[in-house]
Amino acid sequence: MRITIIGSGNVATHMAAALKNAGHKLMQIYSRNLHHANLLAYHVGAEAIDDLQKLGADADLIIIAVKDDAIAGVAQQLSHRHQLIVHTSGTAPLQDLLQYSAMAGVFYPLQTFSKTKEVDFRSVPLCIEGADATIAQTLTGLAQTISNNVYQVNSEQRKILHVAAVFACNFPNYLYHLAQQLLSDNQLDFGLLRPLIAETALKVQQALPGEVQTGPAIRNDEGTMQAHLQLLQAVPEWQTIYALLSQGIIKMK
Amino acid sequence: MRITIIGSGNVATHMAAALKNAGHKLMQIYSRNLHHANLLAYHVGAEAIDDLQKLGADADLIIIAVKDDAIAGVAQQLSHRHQLIVHTSGTAPLQDLLQYSAMAGVFYPLQTFSKTKEVDFRSVPLCIEGADATIAQTLTGLAQTISNNVYQVNSEQRKILHVAAVFACNFPNYLYHLAQQLLSDNQLDFGLLRPLIAETALKVQQALPGEVQTGPAIRNDEGTMQAHLQLLQAVPEWQTIYALLSQGIIKMK
Repeated sequence: MRITIIGSGNVATHMAAALKNAGHKLMQIYSRNLHHANLLAYHVGAEAIDDLQKLGADADLIIIAVKDDAIAGVAQQLSHRHQLIVHTSGTAPLQDLLQYSAMAGVFYPLQTFSKTKEVDFRSVPLCIEGADATIAQTLTGLAQTISNNVYQVNSEQRKILHVAAVFACNFPNYLYHLAQQLLSDNQLDFGLLRPLIAETALKVQQALPGEVQTGPAIRNDEGTMQAHLQLLQAVPEWQTIYALLSQGIIKMK
Repeated sequence: MRITIIGSGNVATHMAAALKNAGHKLMQIYSRNLHHANLLAYHVGAEAIDDLQKLGADADLIIIAVKDDAIAGVAQQLSHRHQLIVHTSGTAPLQDLLQYSAMAGVFYPLQTFSKTKEVDFRSVPLCIEGADATIAQTLTGLAQTISNNVYQVNSEQRKILHVAAVFACNFPNYLYHLAQQLLSDNQLDFGLLRPLIAETALKVQQALPGEVQTGPAIRNDEGTMQAHLQLLQAVPEWQTIYALLSQGIIKMK
């Protein structure tokens, strides 16, 4: 497909590279900052622009990869074009585009991207939604050229997915942080826990988390849990978190 | 070294294999169940026994790798032997052995082992404690023959490490479970979240968790957090967890 991308951030960068590698033709890269547009456009052989008026009519697809609160504004400026338009957001509803264009969809990669870290795009789950069945089919076909994990996900499900990602990514990282604080308060190196953290995440790549739960709470080991709460007494917030999550685990049984 | 192992569970099995591979001589494997002892002993070229009276005097080191509440009982039966004795527990104090033997230490591998899953022992952190400096040095030398991650950790620090491991392993796995429940309640596949879970754990292999925290709470994005709490209203316990952990993250800033 001939594809134009609005945006030059992490998602735009990783997605443009994956599309280019899959043999698609990148037409234009837009950024408010022409230097940023140029950097990405150069890598993928596209034209850099910093004015949406300069958008060509020859792209089959325009991908809006900008911050959530900027999507509707961009979509408004693209209204009345006869081109398929998608956004890449986990939270913005399809409706943000549909109010300006009937040929609309969502192309949401469910992964955390860093500017500097390479990502194997074939393993990135791509969540597809189309305004109609034909659009959904077109987007699914495109998605399968760059990823082995393509899912049809409607706007309601995508909201659920976003809150689930907070539980599966943001909250575990915060718990890693608490563990690291506990260690550094006791002259212990965070390196001690890194292999355990990696193995815990690896285990659920095959199994379901409910099948591999370990620790004192799932064994209902009251003695150990009381001893742990005692150790945490200097920080009541950590005790509260320990007690609340342990109660949840006990109820899993 | 010439080494005898008391126990035939996951820790005993993985540690015996690692020691054998490093060129040490496995003398005897004890299990109450002779069949279990035989299985492991056969693999590492040791003698299987099911009676502690049959323990030879020629091993330089006896590793007690049994359940925490069985350690003291075994140690009592080994009292008055002139051999170095260690346990492999994260929670049992060195004192559990010292009351019966002056030549005692701890040899604690900080990893979660499964019977069926291979583990690269060289990356497993080994936490060493010795009753005196000579014992600590002997155990450190032994540990370095099977692992690249050897740490000196006293009994107080090991307690902290154990509660930190609950925060870094057991609690994140429980949050994966909640995310999976949310998804299955909405006809979504847990496979959608697996790459994100893996990447989140990979990120902290280099960085500290505090440096890579993402999500609505660290951005103090009130609108998204309110929308998420709304989505979770069917399960008040999940709302409580969401609110508590989000408050913690907001305070990180």
